[in-house]
Amino acid sequence: MPNQSVDLVVAGTIGLDDVTTPFGAVTATLGGSASYAAIAASYFARPGVVSIAGTDWPSEQRRELTERGIDLAGVTVSGQTFRWQGVYEFDMNEATTLRTELNALADFAPTVPSNYREATVLLLANLDPSLQALVARALPQTFKILDTMNFWISSQRAALIEAIRLVDVLVLNEAEARQLCDEVNLVKAARELRSLGPTYVMIKQGEHGALLFGHETCFTAPGYPLEALKDPTGAGDSFAGAVAGFLATQPGRDEPTLRRAVIYGSTLASFCTEAFSVERTIHLTEADIEERYDAFKTLSQF
Amino acid sequence: MPNQSVDLVVAGTIGLDDVTTPFGAVTATLGGSASYAAIAASYFARPGVVSIAGTDWPSEQRRELTERGIDLAGVTVSGQTFRWQGVYEFDMNEATTLRTELNALADFAPTVPSNYREATVLLLANLDPSLQALVARALPQTFKILDTMNFWISSQRAALIEAIRLVDVLVLNEAEARQLCDEVNLVKAARELRSLGPTYVMIKQGEHGALLFGHETCFTAPGYPLEALKDPTGAGDSFAGAVAGFLATQPGRDEPTLRRAVIYGSTLASFCTEAFSVERTIHLTEADIEERYDAFKTLSQF
Repeated sequence: MPNQSVDLVVAGTIGLDDVTTPFGAVTATLGGSASYAAIAASYFARPGVVSIAGTDWPSEQRRELTERGIDLAGVTVSGQTFRWQGVYEFDMNEATTLRTELNALADFAPTVPSNYREATVLLLANLDPSLQALVARALPQTFKILDTMNFWISSQRAALIEAIRLVDVLVLNEAEARQLCDEVNLVKAARELRSLGPTYVMIKQGEHGALLFGHETCFTAPGYPLEALKDPTGAGDSFAGAVAGFLATQPGRDEPTLRRAVIYGSTLASFCTEAFSVERTIHLTEADIEERYDAFKTLSQF
Repeated sequence: MPNQSVDLVVAGTIGLDDVTTPFGAVTATLGGSASYAAIAASYFARPGVVSIAGTDWPSEQRRELTERGIDLAGVTVSGQTFRWQGVYEFDMNEATTLRTELNALADFAPTVPSNYREATVLLLANLDPSLQALVARALPQTFKILDTMNFWISSQRAALIEAIRLVDVLVLNEAEARQLCDEVNLVKAARELRSLGPTYVMIKQGEHGALLFGHETCFTAPGYPLEALKDPTGAGDSFAGAVAGFLATQPGRDEPTLRRAVIYGSTLASFCTEAFSVERTIHLTEADIEERYDAFKTLSQF
């Protein structure tokens, strides 16, 4: 029986995370950039995932994804699942990585199932940039969004720049934008990043919100003032996932559409930080999402 | 001849600053919280200054202020002018103080001229909190705004809290809010600060904008994405000055009015950082200000 077609493809990691924050700790919880991003995207459109998980990947975690309508035909199962252990200190700004076990990820050779060929949007969630480029080339018809992190900027700069050249939207955080361009001024950094190819650059600023740079334009999305911040893990992935999911439902790629995408991204990111792992984002309703989207409007109105 | 009455009073410091940033250096330039704040306020209403300067204070700097319609009847002249020397590194986030000479400030006993008695707004710009409280008590009829800094939180916590109890609006930056409350979460910190007395708490976030907290409400003002950031000195003072100046022109103290005040504050702060000292803020036009105010609207619209 052929699989149902998907609206967007999310390529990234699936992992088991051990996370400690000032508000608690969890062990072997569902993690990875593709997990967070696909769940966020699933509130808008039907995602298909390109990733790898081990034979030890709990069936309950797999079921959590499929029950959200996420297609896992592109998930290879082999070896042991990627593991990450991190701890957040009092200020919750950045995780300290205690342990990384690549496991199955070390041998990941992405394959794109045939039912993913009609997707209109591709999210290259945080992943080795050579693999991001490989998937980008396999889905040439898509509108492409690439998310990355400091680790790849340090270790695979050339491959990352090569991958960035292939995409329409680059997503990264402000420290990463500065690091990648060796430029402290974000307006200048965004211009430089856009000159590599992407039409839009989205700069995530954690609790301070996000910036969207287009051609000589800038949009500032507020941070949502959270009282219940518990665990920031996956917030950036959720942001990118919601951006991709929302765009898969929209005919246009103009700036007003991208601005709304950034607010949906910020909405899912804010929910993500309210609980550990995907506990909060897996159980949202459309009403939750629309209510917070509206709260972003109220927050910034003058 | 009696002096003309003023619309608002600004109490704070007048100083001579030596500042080095990655973009240049200046020596013995006009500085101090009252100078920056009064200049910003002067685009909205007529400020009177309560401060102290030395006999060495250059008449040209005095003239720069009076030419902006700023009343200096409350400026005592005695001894040597307060001096500050600071340097900003690459990231421009915080100055490293190389030298502070209190000079005349050490003996400052504020006096409030009779032509200041009709003022409707009082800005207690950054200053020893005991002196802020003294001026607050001398002008009981005013709507009071208090700005402070980390130095006073560390060295005069009890006096600062006493001064905060007397005011309607507290202005401070995010690190200071966290320090004062020993609370990393800004929503909780703002609630605690409001419980001391102020109706509103404004939290400055530098390049990330500002937050306004009222009764169970929050407003997020975007940072203005500046390409030409040269010197952040005085940006916070300019913010508070514009807030005070704008409020002196408004009949109401409701949240929509305060939100607009925050955007005018952000407007003057953004201009301030575009040049050293008061070089940029002293020569603005109403059109410059309205244009940037409108840019803040465009920036945050979705």
